[in-house]
This record gives sequence, structure tokens and C-alpha cells, in this order.
Amino acid sequence: MWSIKLRYRKQWSSFEIIILGFAGVILAGALLLMLPVASREGNVTPFTETLFTATSAACVTGLAVRDTGSYWSVFGQSVILLLIQIGGLGVVTIAVSIAMLSGRKISLMQRSTMQDAISAPKVGGIVRLTRFILKGTFGIELLGALFLLPVFFRDYGGKGIWMALFHSVSAFCNAGFDLLGKTDHLYPSLTSYVGNPLVNLTIMGLIVTGGIGFLTWDDIYTKKYHFRQYCMQSKVILLTSLFLIFVPAAFFFFRDFAGMPVKERTLCALFQSVTTRTAGFNTADLSGMTGASQAIMIVLMMIGGAPGSTAGGMKITTFAVLTANASATFRQREDTQMFGRRVGQEVLKNASTILMMYLFLVLMGGMVISVAENLPISECLFETASAVGTVGLTLGITPQLGVLSKGILIALMFLGRVGGLTLVYAAMPGRKSAHAKMPLEKINVG
Amino acid sequence: MWSIKLRYRKQWSSFEIIILGFAGVILAGALLLMLPVASREGNVTPFTETLFTATSAACVTGLAVRDTGSYWSVFGQSVILLLIQIGGLGVVTIAVSIAMLSGRKISLMQRSTMQDAISAPKVGGIVRLTRFILKGTFGIELLGALFLLPVFFRDYGGKGIWMALFHSVSAFCNAGFDLLGKTDHLYPSLTSYVGNPLVNLTIMGLIVTGGIGFLTWDDIYTKKYHFRQYCMQSKVILLTSLFLIFVPAAFFFFRDFAGMPVKERTLCALFQSVTTRTAGFNTADLSGMTGASQAIMIVLMMIGGAPGSTAGGMKITTFAVLTANASATFRQREDTQMFGRRVGQEVLKNASTILMMYLFLVLMGGMVISVAENLPISECLFETASAVGTVGLTLGITPQLGVLSKGILIALMFLGRVGGLTLVYAAMPGRKSAHAKMPLEKINVG
Ligand SMILES: [K+]
Ligand SMILES: [K+]
Repeated sequence: MWSIKLRYRKQWSSFEIIILGFAGVILAGALLLMLPVASREGNVTPFTETLFTATSAACVTGLAVRDTGSYWSVFGQSVILLLIQIGGLGVVTIAVSIAMLSGRKISLMQRSTMQDAISAPKVGGIVRLTRFILKGTFGIELLGALFLLPVFFRDYGGKGIWMALFHSVSAFCNAGFDLLGKTDHLYPSLTSYVGNPLVNLTIMGLIVTGGIGFLTWDDIYTKKYHFRQYCMQSKVILLTSLFLIFVPAAFFFFRDFAGMPVKERTLCALFQSVTTRTAGFNTADLSGMTGASQAIMIVLMMIGGAPGSTAGGMKITTFAVLTANASATFRQREDTQMFGRRVGQEVLKNASTILMMYLFLVLMGGMVISVAENLPISECLFETASAVGTVGLTLGITPQLGVLSKGILIALMFLGRVGGLTLVYAAMPGRKSAHAKMPLEKINVG
Repeated sequence: MWSIKLRYRKQWSSFEIIILGFAGVILAGALLLMLPVASREGNVTPFTETLFTATSAACVTGLAVRDTGSYWSVFGQSVILLLIQIGGLGVVTIAVSIAMLSGRKISLMQRSTMQDAISAPKVGGIVRLTRFILKGTFGIELLGALFLLPVFFRDYGGKGIWMALFHSVSAFCNAGFDLLGKTDHLYPSLTSYVGNPLVNLTIMGLIVTGGIGFLTWDDIYTKKYHFRQYCMQSKVILLTSLFLIFVPAAFFFFRDFAGMPVKERTLCALFQSVTTRTAGFNTADLSGMTGASQAIMIVLMMIGGAPGSTAGGMKITTFAVLTANASATFRQREDTQMFGRRVGQEVLKNASTILMMYLFLVLMGGMVISVAENLPISECLFETASAVGTVGLTLGITPQLGVLSKGILIALMFLGRVGGLTLVYAAMPGRKSAHAKMPLEKINVG
């Protein structure tokens, strides 16, 4: 009897597992952060604030309503770091890893969920890929921490070890949380290290490494220097990333940071460009940047990083597909092509949907917050783009937002991290039975 | 010999004819406006300013670098009105009309050019359609002038006849030029009639009539009250227009114009919503509106009006197709559908291209102007969206712009009126010979 009953249990789809697992981790994190031991002063932090913090950490966003360095205790910071690491790797990777480490056989169901979670091209090799992801992540995070150690040890002594580790993980996972705040100087991010090449280059290296995605690394690792043999997706990610790093950096260099010496100015422009698409650290005061630069940053935040990476946003592949499609239209070619490969119609359909969805969410969210809080729309758009791109940069308005606005940002962060299409596929029952094709009718656009 | 030579002349494509005809009209207008007799003071106005004015008029935009009412003479205003009428009807409609009126037979070439110019579904019935467009346009403009006459006659005496006619044509063509400026009160638009129901309702009626397009009117005229029999395109245009008029109007009503009595406030909110998508008149000071409302206006300006109408922008059908596509993705349907009809893949490809192009142009243009003029980015984006949507609303910065910024706005207005795809098709030689299909390769988006 029992076994029959068990067989009747609902079969979860991989998308439902991803979302529920994620939500569960966030809820657990929020409850842990409410414990008095989590805050430096021994307070019970209100649930709305811990939920915001846990969502921000697990979604590797970095928006904060409490200064991480001065408000939370080492226990609280550890909870946040754990959430960041889980969020960066993804709940499914974690679950599969635990199953692997405990020696269990990975079921086909788990493999296929893992495939959906990291957008892997095929089910085969998932176990090998998971191992690669784990080794790569911890290896690089450790390496990053070693590079950061000299500076933090010099500035903070023994505590510097914890700080080097925290910032390395936070950077690789593109989380953007920092521990540098003091009670008399909240939310400083990395501004005190604006001219430090070691910190700048290490953090940038970690961000870029984390942001181009595990699949790209696997491709690079497998095929080494043979760029032509890379998957089309890896080529697109690598080249688009280069473009999206250096072009905005050049703009920032010429338009901002006028008072700085050239070396510092170069680092600063480059850092702000690298960090904007998803990492969320900053070494300069963003509200002091020009309006045009802030607009570029909003666009970069919405574009985000690579699929199957620690980054959020609508993803650089979406941006690349839409651009390639425009180029194909202009050249009157029937198919959208990149690097000698055709892109499917389904992909354009999804990319176009995602663009509309992100534009809609950022605009609507920004508008509601602007109305609810009576704040300038440009600052609110910066905030919503930052949330949906899981970036975490802010012009400074996050901490004083009301419950409605916090709720909107929480929803946007979750959506940005889980990915719009995952949410859609989870909410909807499997592909509907084939409808009768409607007759085609002409409609003019543009 | 002669006839042989003549046969060798280049065959222009319809898109080239549309663009060159348009450019020719603008150039002629700019030269006429340079004549001393065109300005009230008998000045020779600089070419950059007359080119801007002529482009703005022929592209029915309404951005002005000289106050139309106080700077230009009646001759100058007549040139502007003629340009507006040509721009509103379209150069090709004008050319075909002249050929028809002179009793000549309309060649297949002309019919097909006309078809492309007004985005008509088929070549057949073009002559009938042209007649319908001419009768409809002049009939409605005359009717509008009669409605406006009492108010303008009361306020301006005999000159009121000219003013009623000018504003009726300017409203129906969605041009947004007005003659109400005085040397001590420049660029007032219709602010002095903010509470006048007759002026408000007449102008709104003219704007909406002109903005939904000749093809829609032809559909309504042919099928009367049988909404179900309308083309899918007409249904989409009518319903999307209703949505895009009343939803923003409700927002403006609650967020802006707080000091006004309810009747005036309703009119004012409705007017600002109707005018924003392409007409460009205003009855309220736009720079006094909230940031959120200004952001909505930027979106509305980019969306614009119906294809084959006097309106600019990326067109409401583009917006509708992209939204329907998003809805189809969410519901996991393979095909994009509207009103029981399927939308072709080619249409989505074009719609997506247009969205990317407009986003790119508005952002890049706004950024360059912001840098060149040292103005806030939000105001510059408002200006570029206004130009590309051929709207003509401004937060007040147009008149003092430099040559580079004026050039950008001229280019955007031209592109917005001619339509992005027309330009593309004209610039590129006909559809390239079929390429070998590239192999399909998977890429993840979102
Ligand atoms: K982040
Ligand atoms: K206009």
C-alpha cells in the first residue's frame, strides 16, 4: 500500500525544483539571520530586512539594507557567505554535489535537473561537469584569496584572512558584498582601494572568471588555444564580454574621474565597467558619475553576464542574438547567424521575450518605487536594473526604502537570478498540446 | 538612339523613390525658408536652422529652433504648412495624386511604390485607396478647422481663419506645429487652451484620426460596425491605441496636475496621453511633470502611432507583435497569435530588429547630445525619443543645441518618419541570393 501511495506523489519538473530549492535556501538564510547571534549588537533583525539580505546574498546581488561589515556578526557574515556560495554555484549544483560526495548514484532525473540548472547542452557528462565546476570554483576562490591576503593582512591583521576569503568568494560569485563598512562609514564597497592595482586586478579577474560561465570554462579547458573549435556560445560570450568591458571603460575614462592620475583613472574606469554587468563592487562614488555614464551602467546591468554563470541579467547571449538578428535583417538574410552557425527561430523568440520582459520589469518597478518613495525616476531605474541584473550597485537609496519597494526589489533579484524563462517554464504546465495552426495574416511593423 | 539610352536609366526601387523624394522636398523647403520673405523681420535664416525646420515639418515632428508663430512670416508659415501636408500624406501619395489629377494612367511601378509607401496589403485598389486618402484627409482637416474656428475667430479675428486651418492640418498630420507663440512668450503650444473643451476635443480627435492610419480607416469605412471582419492589423491598431491612450492618461491624472479642477485635470491628462505618441502639442508644461510621467512619455514617444499613418515611432503594431510574442512564449505556444491569426516569423524578426534599432538610436543619440551639450541625460533622451518618434515634444532644450546635436535630431526625425526598414531596404541591394544554410547550433538566452 505504501509503495503505491509513494508512486502517486507529484513529479516535480526540474524548473520547479530549481525555484523551490532556491526559495527554501533563502527562507532558511532569512531565519538564521534573524537570530540575535547574527548581528553584532545581538538584535533580532526584522524579517523583511533579513529576507532582503538573504535574497540579495543567495541571488548574488549585493544590494544591502544593513551594512555587511559593521552590522552583522562573523556568524551573520558566514551565513551570508554561505548563501553567496550556494547562490553562485546554484542550489542544484550543490544538491548534486552532496549526492555525489555521499557516494550515491546520480539519477537521470537529477542529471536532467542539473542540465537545466546550468543550461548545459546535453545530459551526458553532467557528473564530470559538476566535478569540474566544484574544483574550478573552490580552486579559483582560494587563489583569489591568496592574492588578496597581503593587502588585507597589512590593513586588518589576522581578521584579514577572513576578509580575503570573503571578498574572493564574493567577487567570484559576482555577489558584490563587502566587509569594509564601519559604523561611521557605511557601504563603502572597495572605494578605499581605488588605486590599489593588486586588489583591483584580482577582484576584476575573479569577476570576469565567474561571469563568463562554467560552460565557457569547460570549453576553454577542453579545447585550449583552438578558438575555432569552441562552441558558438563560448565564442559569442568571450567576444561580447570583451566588447562590453572595454567600450564602456573607454567612455568612463574620458567622461568621469577627471581629478585622478592616469594610472588610477584607468583602473577606476576599467573596474567600474567590469563590475557593472553583474558584480556590484565599486571603487568610485557612482552618484558622482555623469548622467550619460549612469545610463550606460543601467544598460550594462540589464544585459548582465553569461548564461550558466554566477551572473544575472538578461544575459550577454540574449543581447548578442538580438544584435545578430538586427544585422541579419539589415543584410536581408533570412537566418540569424553568428560565427558560421545558424540561430534557431525559437531562440530569437525567447530572446525577444526576455528583452521585453526586462524592459517592462525595470520600467514598471522603477515607476512604482519612484511613486511610492517620491524619488527621482533615474535613481529608481538604476536600482531596479541593479536588482534584476543581480548587480547590487546603488546610487544610495536602497537602505531607506519602504516595504513595498523592498518587496519589488526582492522579486526582481529572485527573477534575475533564477532567470525569466525558468520561472515561466515552472509556472506553466508542460508544453500545451499542439494547437491547430491559425491562418497567417500580414501585419506591418516599423 | 535616344529611346535606347532612356531604357538604360537606372531602375529606382520604391524605397529609393520614397527616400529621395522626401529628401528633395525637405531640401526645397529649407531653401524657401532661407528667403528673407519667409521670416517676419526679413532675415536670411541660416541653412542649418531652415534645414532643421523643414525636416521637422516634412517629417511631421514639430521640434522647432525658431518659434513658428512669432519668427516666420505668413509665407514662411505657408511653406511649413505645405511641408506638413506633404509629409503627412507622404511624398508618394502626393506624386500619385498629381499624376491622377493630371489624367495620366498610373503605371504598375507607381502603384507598387505607393503600396510600399503606405504599407498597403496589395497593389490592387491603389487608385481607389489614394482617392480615399485624399478625400478623407482634406475633408477631416476642413471639418477640424470649422470646429476650431469659433475659438480662434474670437481670440484673433480674421487671422483666426488661418490659425484654425493651420492647427487643424498640423493636428491631423500629427505635426504639432503651432502659431500661438509671441515674441515675449515663445513655444507656448496649446497651453493657453488647457481648459477649453472645444479646442482639446477637436485637436485630440484630429490627432487620433490621423494617427490610426489610412488603411485602418479604409477597413472601418468598408466594413462599418462589423468589428470581427476587420483585418487583424486594424483590430490590433484600434485596441492597442485605446490601451495606450487611457492607461497613461489615468497615470498622469493621478500623478500630475494636482492644482487643477477635475474637469480641466481630466482634459489635461487625456490630452498629454493622446499627444505623446506622435502629435507633439502640449497643453501643460512638460518639465513640470513628474519624472515617472516623463519616463512613460519617452516610452510612448518611442512606440509612436500606426503604420501607414501620419505618425512616427517604431509603431504600435511592432509593440503589439513583441508583446504577443512574449505572451506566446509564456504560454509555451509555438506561434505568435493575435485575434485568431498567426504572425509570420519574418514579422517577429523585423519587429525585434526595429526595437533594437530604436533603443540603440535613442540611447546613443541621447548620450552624444548629453556629452556635447553638457545637459542631463534624461532631458536628452526625452529629446531623441521625441525626434525618432516624430513627436516634437521637448523639455525645452532644442532651440539652444549646437550643430552636431541638431544634425543628430535631423537624422533621427528623417529615420523616424521614413521608417527604419524603408531606409534599410533602400540602402541594400535587393534580397541577396540564397546562401547555403549554416548548420544550426544551440545557444542559451535569458
Ligand atoms: K552582484
Ligand atoms: K509630431
